[in-house]
Amino acid sequence: MPDVGGIASERLRSFIERIERLEEEKAALAADIRDVFAEAKGTGFDTKVMRQVIKLRKMESNDRQELETMLELYMAALGMIPSSGVDQNEAAE
Amino acid sequence: MPDVGGIASERLRSFIERIERLEEEKAALAADIRDVFAEAKGTGFDTKVMRQVIKLRKMESNDRQELETMLELYMAALGMIPSSGVDQNEAAE
Amino acid sequence: MPDVGGIASERLRSFIERIERLEEEKAALAADIRDVFAEAKGTGFDTKVMRQVIKLRKMESNDRQELETMLELYMAALGMIPSSGVDQNEAAE
Amino acid sequence: MPDVGGIASERLRSFIERIERLEEEKAALAADIRDVFAEAKGTGFDTKVMRQVIKLRKMESNDRQELETMLELYMAALGMIPSSGVDQNEAAE
Repeated sequence: MPDVGGIASERLRSFIERIERLEEEKAALAADIRDVFAEAKGTGFDTKVMRQVIKLRKMESNDRQELETMLELYMAALGMIPSSGVDQNEAAE
Repeated sequence: MPDVGGIASERLRSFIERIERLEEEKAALAADIRDVFAEAKGTGFDTKVMRQVIKLRKMESNDRQELETMLELYMAALGMIPSSGVDQNEAAE
Repeated sequence: MPDVGGIASERLRSFIERIERLEEEKAALAADIRDVFAEAKGTGFDTKVMRQVIKLRKMESNDRQELETMLELYMAALGMIPSSGVDQNEAAE
Repeated sequence: MPDVGGIASERLRSFIERIERLEEEKAALAADIRDVFAEAKGTGFDTKVMRQVIKLRKMESNDRQELETMLELYMAALGMIPSSGVDQNEAAE
């Protein structure tokens, strides 16, 4: 194998070309994902909500419920939602 | 096909599942790319330089040379490299 | 003003140094934000939930409620939560 | 301090508001940086080259030269630039 400046050229070229092929496939998949979202949008679905759903589907059901409960707790504490249902230690804020 | 709250459930599920499959494949490719870089690193190649090479290979040869020339010009103007070779309009700065 | 290769050195240097100063300040703020999150975590708060709260606070109350309603609808349609409360019409599509 | 669902509301609000203020300042700086780049572009500078220069200025001079040397070596090994100057172990590839 010819060396250029001590570099095993063919070895380097092989690594680079493997990475380039994988990156092309990855870019093609990213384009496919964009296409599906565009198609869903064209059908009337909200892609922002879809993205949130996909994120939540990755979590275990228990973790998801815990996250949701804490989110409501924090939002109630900040007055973003009414704190009814949430037990309130003190009457006035 | 059952609707939930006016949502075409099966249609939505189909979109979501297509996206999830594509994202899985994309994640697998990202892992493959990391593996090739790790293998190259194990062979003694510098992955930072490899990333730069891959970026430059995406550019046309002419654009690359123009970018390189401008980079040297800017670096000389900032005193990061000696400005020999670059024509200098005025002697002192 | 001395030119190097036709480049107005001082003008370039001024732009570069202004950007570098702004980027330093920006990096310092990013570090401050990390510190506040770390402090909040040390006090027992969940930083993941905090990030979600901050995101939601940026939205108008109406938009937030609409997003939340749609999210529940989509999740019910996908069987991630029970669809009680959501009106279900089992007509064919 | 009033608690909502066991959450120290005021403590949480304080953390959230500190983060929001810092994020606002960070966003303002990011806008300032974009403005300086826009101004530089309006003066005729190439912002892509400027970004590269800024990146290189963060590196020590020695590291920068080493990176540059390796980059040339790799590019020569891949036939992207002529390998003259680089010592070549074998004549033909």
